[in-house]
Amino acid sequence: MKDFPHLDHIAIAVNSLEEKKQIYEDLGFNVSEHIEEVPSQMVKTCFANIEGRARIELLEPTSDESSIAKFIKSKGEGIHHLCFRVDDIEAKQKELAEKGYKFIYPGPTQGADNCLVNFIHPKSAGGVLIEISQKVKK
Amino acid sequence: MKDFPHLDHIAIAVNSLEEKKQIYEDLGFNVSEHIEEVPSQMVKTCFANIEGRARIELLEPTSDESSIAKFIKSKGEGIHHLCFRVDDIEAKQKELAEKGYKFIYPGPTQGADNCLVNFIHPKSAGGVLIEISQKVKK
Repeated sequence: MKDFPHLDHIAIAVNSLEEKKQIYEDLGFNVSEHIEEVPSQMVKTCFANIEGRARIELLEPTSDESSIAKFIKSKGEGIHHLCFRVDDIEAKQKELAEKGYKFIYPGPTQGADNCLVNFIHPKSAGGVLIEISQKVKK
Repeated sequence: MKDFPHLDHIAIAVNSLEEKKQIYEDLGFNVSEHIEEVPSQMVKTCFANIEGRARIELLEPTSDESSIAKFIKSKGEGIHHLCFRVDDIEAKQKELAEKGYKFIYPGPTQGADNCLVNFIHPKSAGGVLIEISQKVKK
């Protein structure tokens, strides 16, 4: 079983590479200038490398009032958000807010696994709900 | 800019952790027995580690007939699929098919970046479109 689990990429559907790659550059990614067209799939595509290890998180609602329950009710089960770790969540939120990104919460809030978190609104991020997360030292 | 880009996790909304973690165990992940409840978010959650580096892929349709164009038309821009690299795509497809997973294509097909790919149907994978990909030696 050495061929799993290795995450290769997360694919994000966009109307325009040129327009939406700005989001990932703004987040600090180095988006490649190389654009590959894949005629068989009728798409063009570009990549940005991610450093570090990642995890899959499964989220189950414990109340019908949970945003996860509402998500599943309206869209069905599926990918809910991406989370990127930051060193200083307040500084990162300030930096991104100055670039026009809207956040779900006015400031960092308590998340799972002893982290401070906030979420960039999908309307600011090409339909993707992006969480930023800072590990709190115990 | 040392606090980006580090992918921490991909969050997937499920109706039942107990039921859906089997999918990720079947894919080779070691899903933690530890389940954390986050009352403020009204969820419970568990994690599985991913090894290796990952990339963000942006996909832009070049035809209205593209499945990406249809995806955007019906659901809007957003996360489309996850891709996991495998050493032997035919063996992995066979193994997963024997466990009941349905695939989009009968066998591996040419993907971007000189890879052979196939997709597990979202109906088999908790609403997530999962690509498996084998790098082809030049």
